[in-house]
Amino acid sequence: MAAVSDFIDGERLWQRLMQLARFGETAEGGVDRPALSETEIAARAQLVAWADEIGLDPYTDSLANLFLRLEGEDPNLPPLLIGSHIDSQPTGGRFDGVYGVLAALEVAEAFKSSGIVLKRAIEVVAWTNEEGSRFAPGMMGSAGYAGLRSVETIHALRDGAGTTAGEAIERVLAHDRNIPQRSLKRSAFGYIEAHIEQGPILENLGIPLGIVTGIQGKRTFRVTVKGEENHAGTSPRSVRKDALVTAIAIIDALQKAVWDREDVVRFTIGHFAVSPNAPSVVPARVEFSIDLRHPDADTLIRLGDLVAPIAKGHTGPCAVEVTQLLHDAPLVFAEEMRDLLARVASASNFPAIEIASGAGHDARHLHAICPTGMLFIPCWKGVSHHPSERIESDHALAGAKVLAQAVERLVG
Amino acid sequence: MAAVSDFIDGERLWQRLMQLARFGETAEGGVDRPALSETEIAARAQLVAWADEIGLDPYTDSLANLFLRLEGEDPNLPPLLIGSHIDSQPTGGRFDGVYGVLAALEVAEAFKSSGIVLKRAIEVVAWTNEEGSRFAPGMMGSAGYAGLRSVETIHALRDGAGTTAGEAIERVLAHDRNIPQRSLKRSAFGYIEAHIEQGPILENLGIPLGIVTGIQGKRTFRVTVKGEENHAGTSPRSVRKDALVTAIAIIDALQKAVWDREDVVRFTIGHFAVSPNAPSVVPARVEFSIDLRHPDADTLIRLGDLVAPIAKGHTGPCAVEVTQLLHDAPLVFAEEMRDLLARVASASNFPAIEIASGAGHDARHLHAICPTGMLFIPCWKGVSHHPSERIESDHALAGAKVLAQAVERLVG
Repeated sequence: MAAVSDFIDGERLWQRLMQLARFGETAEGGVDRPALSETEIAARAQLVAWADEIGLDPYTDSLANLFLRLEGEDPNLPPLLIGSHIDSQPTGGRFDGVYGVLAALEVAEAFKSSGIVLKRAIEVVAWTNEEGSRFAPGMMGSAGYAGLRSVETIHALRDGAGTTAGEAIERVLAHDRNIPQRSLKRSAFGYIEAHIEQGPILENLGIPLGIVTGIQGKRTFRVTVKGEENHAGTSPRSVRKDALVTAIAIIDALQKAVWDREDVVRFTIGHFAVSPNAPSVVPARVEFSIDLRHPDADTLIRLGDLVAPIAKGHTGPCAVEVTQLLHDAPLVFAEEMRDLLARVASASNFPAIEIASGAGHDARHLHAICPTGMLFIPCWKGVSHHPSERIESDHALAGAKVLAQAVERLVG
Repeated sequence: MAAVSDFIDGERLWQRLMQLARFGETAEGGVDRPALSETEIAARAQLVAWADEIGLDPYTDSLANLFLRLEGEDPNLPPLLIGSHIDSQPTGGRFDGVYGVLAALEVAEAFKSSGIVLKRAIEVVAWTNEEGSRFAPGMMGSAGYAGLRSVETIHALRDGAGTTAGEAIERVLAHDRNIPQRSLKRSAFGYIEAHIEQGPILENLGIPLGIVTGIQGKRTFRVTVKGEENHAGTSPRSVRKDALVTAIAIIDALQKAVWDREDVVRFTIGHFAVSPNAPSVVPARVEFSIDLRHPDADTLIRLGDLVAPIAKGHTGPCAVEVTQLLHDAPLVFAEEMRDLLARVASASNFPAIEIASGAGHDARHLHAICPTGMLFIPCWKGVSHHPSERIESDHALAGAKVLAQAVERLVG
């Protein structure tokens, strides 16, 4: 008997990746496809057209999540979900998110072609607004689906132009008027998301697959340093309240405190704003962000708890405020899913390693309601969220094959 | 015989200071009077009206410098210039610049009232665009007068709105059509500028007058750090090219290298811009400014020459460029002027100390063509370029009296 993975067509998958990349294509060869935009509506229509050709039934919901369903023997059993998202960062690439959706579509088509009977339905899913660059916070559709945020809260969010997410969703659903809208339901048998690694580890090791152990925890902070504006030529150091000097002392001390030989800690000052920011004026105010991540819950707590005391210990003559904005504990995916993915990778002779996810994914939210797993494929130099984002078609194929076999073991 | 300083009227001087502060008055109690603006044109008309009442002859030139002349016995001898400027920073105060012009006007009126015969003319001067916040670089009128910049170069400068300095000057001169326009001449017998200290030293010591020894030297640099954008969650420290981390290492090393126990070095990072400046993105680029000042030429050379090697020694994985934008050597005012000012202060029983100027002034340019001196009076907490700029009327009076006596010794 033929295995489902024999029906996975790498060439077809690659062509679809290239085709979807045209929606929001940029001059630099990347993709700019904001969540719930006209560009995403067009890409979504393309997904539905493919689903029609394959024979999948499309559904949507009040958050405009898109599901393409391949029915199983018992339509009443909760479906197995496979997918990711198709929105991008403003200067995004062609594969982040899209790969997971199109690999899942390829798996559904392979099942259809194989004639294998499924015990329960599988649904290819594209979650709404994973990136969070138009409406923040991101991972919006999966958060609503998993019941972690209310639909009302989500609908009330506004983008930079003042449009609410509710209005933007309404516009998408108007285009989807031929697609049945289901109530937001929270019963899923499981969820598997394939994704590019967004880091350099698989590429550096020359390994085509990563079995994701979990998503590291994340704490973010805003630090505000208030000093006093002064004349760069006339004010002696002893009377200055230089907010930049204090900010630098704080950052220097924090860097030393969180440093680890193993290079597991992720510590980033990405945002740093100075006021009045004029060359001959002593800075009166600095505001900077801290992004701290770690896969171990206790370490994340210990390191994050150092931020406020270290900042307070290096105020110099300035006033310093530390505000924690987010504390997401690390998450470990269901052992059954990790084992299953490792077994099918090994059975297919694809080398695979366990790997932690540095970035957040919709899988974080699905993990709250069903056994969830993730599969990484390598990406060029670990680059993502950039026009130069690139993957190998062999890796794309390997990921889809392993995903297909995992699905077969779960619902075949 | 009465001395000229007996005719100095402190109350009149204070009233004029308050009256001129109305031109460009801000809600915060400060002044916003851009160079060559409608506001400055109105303030200028007020100066000319006072000159008419006193009996001074107004003149202007192709840079819109304003001269109010009190004729001397021999009209052919080069005049003694006394004054400063009346333009302000956008969030400026009531005294920076204006005090020097109105103290000079008070001196001219005192001579007029005293009946003392002057061997040569004195001219009260308001130089065009000292601040440099509308057209950069500043000290424009005095630079042209001293022949240090060409009129053509100055006329070609543009403000943020695209207006050239030439056009703005033309508009001012159209208002001044009744004021004779002289050729830009460079023969002056001497120049004395009274000014607020813009630093805390006189106030801290409780001394009303500072005899300015000179203007400290200044070197400015732009440092550009080029790294690589990366994902804050996924990229290990070992592969990052974090431009902010490198910038902080450079600044930290520079701060240590230029530190002096005596607190004479002025070292300021006033401008610091991060790109893309997003909390979850490793910074790809940082550009920051360095403003370094010192009264000693050799020390300024030695410290400034450390900038490039220290920056190059702390590049980490990034590329670093250092560009020097300015190197103004320190300047020591003519000994005869410093001695004269010290003698008249002492004769008037006003305590005075020698003091270096941290800020630049039009006197820097006049120094190139004639014996030049400066007189400082204290200002509240050393604050300048701010609505809270404040002086004591007693100090304003003391400065005007000493200025009057110095002028009398020079040309009486």
